[in-house]
Amino acid sequence: MNCFIETEKDSHFPIQNLPYGIFKTNDNPAPRAGTAIGKYILDLSVLESNGFFSEVFKSRKNVFANSDLNLFMSLGSEVRKNIRKILQNILSSDNPALKENDSLRQLCLIDSVKCEMCMPVTIGDYTDFYSSKEHATNVGIMFRGKENALMPNWLHLPVAYHGRASSVVLSGTDIIRPKGQTKADDAEMPSFGPTRLLDFELEMGFFIGTGNKLSAPIPVDKADEHIFGMVMVNDWSARDIQKWEYVPLGPFLAKNFATSISPWIVTLEALEPFKTKKVIQDPEPLPYLRSKGDWAYDIKLDVSIKTEKLKAPFILSKSNYRYMYWDICQQLAHHTVNGCNMRTGDLLASGTISGPDKSSFGSMLEITWRGTEPVKLPDDEERKFLLDGDELTITGWCQGEDYRVGFGEVKGKIIPAV
Amino acid sequence: MNCFIETEKDSHFPIQNLPYGIFKTNDNPAPRAGTAIGKYILDLSVLESNGFFSEVFKSRKNVFANSDLNLFMSLGSEVRKNIRKILQNILSSDNPALKENDSLRQLCLIDSVKCEMCMPVTIGDYTDFYSSKEHATNVGIMFRGKENALMPNWLHLPVAYHGRASSVVLSGTDIIRPKGQTKADDAEMPSFGPTRLLDFELEMGFFIGTGNKLSAPIPVDKADEHIFGMVMVNDWSARDIQKWEYVPLGPFLAKNFATSISPWIVTLEALEPFKTKKVIQDPEPLPYLRSKGDWAYDIKLDVSIKTEKLKAPFILSKSNYRYMYWDICQQLAHHTVNGCNMRTGDLLASGTISGPDKSSFGSMLEITWRGTEPVKLPDDEERKFLLDGDELTITGWCQGEDYRVGFGEVKGKIIPAV
Repeated sequence: MNCFIETEKDSHFPIQNLPYGIFKTNDNPAPRAGTAIGKYILDLSVLESNGFFSEVFKSRKNVFANSDLNLFMSLGSEVRKNIRKILQNILSSDNPALKENDSLRQLCLIDSVKCEMCMPVTIGDYTDFYSSKEHATNVGIMFRGKENALMPNWLHLPVAYHGRASSVVLSGTDIIRPKGQTKADDAEMPSFGPTRLLDFELEMGFFIGTGNKLSAPIPVDKADEHIFGMVMVNDWSARDIQKWEYVPLGPFLAKNFATSISPWIVTLEALEPFKTKKVIQDPEPLPYLRSKGDWAYDIKLDVSIKTEKLKAPFILSKSNYRYMYWDICQQLAHHTVNGCNMRTGDLLASGTISGPDKSSFGSMLEITWRGTEPVKLPDDEERKFLLDGDELTITGWCQGEDYRVGFGEVKGKIIPAV
Repeated sequence: MNCFIETEKDSHFPIQNLPYGIFKTNDNPAPRAGTAIGKYILDLSVLESNGFFSEVFKSRKNVFANSDLNLFMSLGSEVRKNIRKILQNILSSDNPALKENDSLRQLCLIDSVKCEMCMPVTIGDYTDFYSSKEHATNVGIMFRGKENALMPNWLHLPVAYHGRASSVVLSGTDIIRPKGQTKADDAEMPSFGPTRLLDFELEMGFFIGTGNKLSAPIPVDKADEHIFGMVMVNDWSARDIQKWEYVPLGPFLAKNFATSISPWIVTLEALEPFKTKKVIQDPEPLPYLRSKGDWAYDIKLDVSIKTEKLKAPFILSKSNYRYMYWDICQQLAHHTVNGCNMRTGDLLASGTISGPDKSSFGSMLEITWRGTEPVKLPDDEERKFLLDGDELTITGWCQGEDYRVGFGEVKGKIIPAV
């Protein structure tokens, strides 16, 4: 695929990607839909109003002129695939329609440094899974001991819990250190104050395109048709608050102060070439969870920290989305098997993604083994958990032969408690 | 307060109540806001368009002409209190404005049998607390044994978890028996099928009127200003699914297939005369949880079942909202103390409300002690849990000297699994 806009080999946004996001500019502060292409954002609302998508959208108007992608997402996977074809055609070197139309190009092709990204989706419900076996095992050992590490249900179903939709924030939003109730093992009474064990969680998430009615489960072999695309997720966590509150109903205030997502949603079409063999599941799951095909994706994930002292970001972890035990089709089939209804814009996150060893763990909790093995940073710094001023960045991409399909980044800086 | 519309002594909707709901009619299928008065619904959108609220709403238009109450709720407690005064004045026997205006009365005062109630609120996030000590103790004994019944954190903080907003449904919606994964104690592997232990949970919930910004907690002594009003809640539960899935992240598919709410939201103003002494909390909670004043309410709660065989509903439980250990101000202060943001329309439910003994327990699980002590119904029927065809109704009211402030009812009928 030749694109008339040149993109570097390590750009996250070549013509093979074409993710969806919401952006605004100083010149036009109305949030609207765009796709990233190299160093530019292509304003899809301008293309729409110039009739480029009328064959697909028919009489429908202003699909890309909203402050979220929900309407577009609700139109389904066929519409999305058709728009992708049109976009690849518009951007092709062989097509003069945009390439040689200076005035249109000036209107719709905007240098991304002039753009401010916005929340791409109005999220209805946010669910967080717990689908990395390595992570569940690590946390299990630390919170409950080696004997009870992986609970008996874990290999039979993708464990999950409901998260908080209101506090899902866009990459770049500062994370204010939350306060809460904690209790030291040797204390008689709990106490209140800023969390001392602030952590990140390396996750990915997918957005629902088309939902299902209440009481009408989505079968596992139809699940992908309901999925719009994926983002990177950082599910910030306060480990001391979590430890004290989470039995018996699960994590609550330890998690719901903030969850950061990356601004670009990468579609399943763009990820398709990076499907890879899935993990062998033993025992075999129940029939309603038997997904056909390999729904694992080879997505490289880097986590880095930039402290106030550090001159350059320091890599904390190099992981990969393919480590997941439960795949996205299994997650969605399980979530709806009781009749639970999904709505356009619902976010389902993976849970922390950890690989087989310390270099690929997805949280400080695991990397420093609950603070007992601090990470050594350059210049004699070290970290057990995150300190005020630390900036945490997750980046992720799929590596093609001479191109990348990337997610950009999701980052957040820790600000002292109020 | 004399109302020109006569209401029976046991009516839930005298002039002292004036709850808010959304309704539609055959004549006018557009959902709009109303208040219940005796056997009538007063169409607030008609009153608004006739200028009755212009002093309060000023230039704002169509506050009551929406398909949800969210805009009105977002205007805050002062606006709500002022509208209440206007409504009580309009309905007063001494005021001819509506009483003697036949054409206006015909337009805005509608026999409630001609009205269909709709979901009153667009819910952002739904949180379920676990704030009845009796319930937490009962369930704790059954799930974890007497030694670990009440977890160490329970007396120090109002335990809660996130629920599913998409599956909150209006009273009257049929409840289709959910399917799911369960595992019998003596089985080697889990199996899949319709839940065999379908239960109700007697709860109440409150809606957020005005929210808070992320990272700006709501102090306990300001919490009431953010609360719009209350509804009755039935948090349907599948106990066998719950038992297998809930460790370590809490209940998920066991709960998110349906949660029913009553259609009328009773405001804090209407409930004010029914405040009662709160439970003594020992140990004293941390300062951020010390609510001033008595935020307990004397709300009588009846649960009844109507089976296909039964000729009349049979009372399963007579409970009271005053049994709650943690009050609504404490719940809201705790939920936001880490900076978690509330939005207009968020629903915070109490958790199952159980009283001191079997006659006041709030779930079949407790009433039949996990099925070991079935409830005897007339005509030789008995129940351990809910069967297909059973209809469950919760009703609740505050008893004044010669009037009631009531919630109407929340009901749902069990339909066989698909």
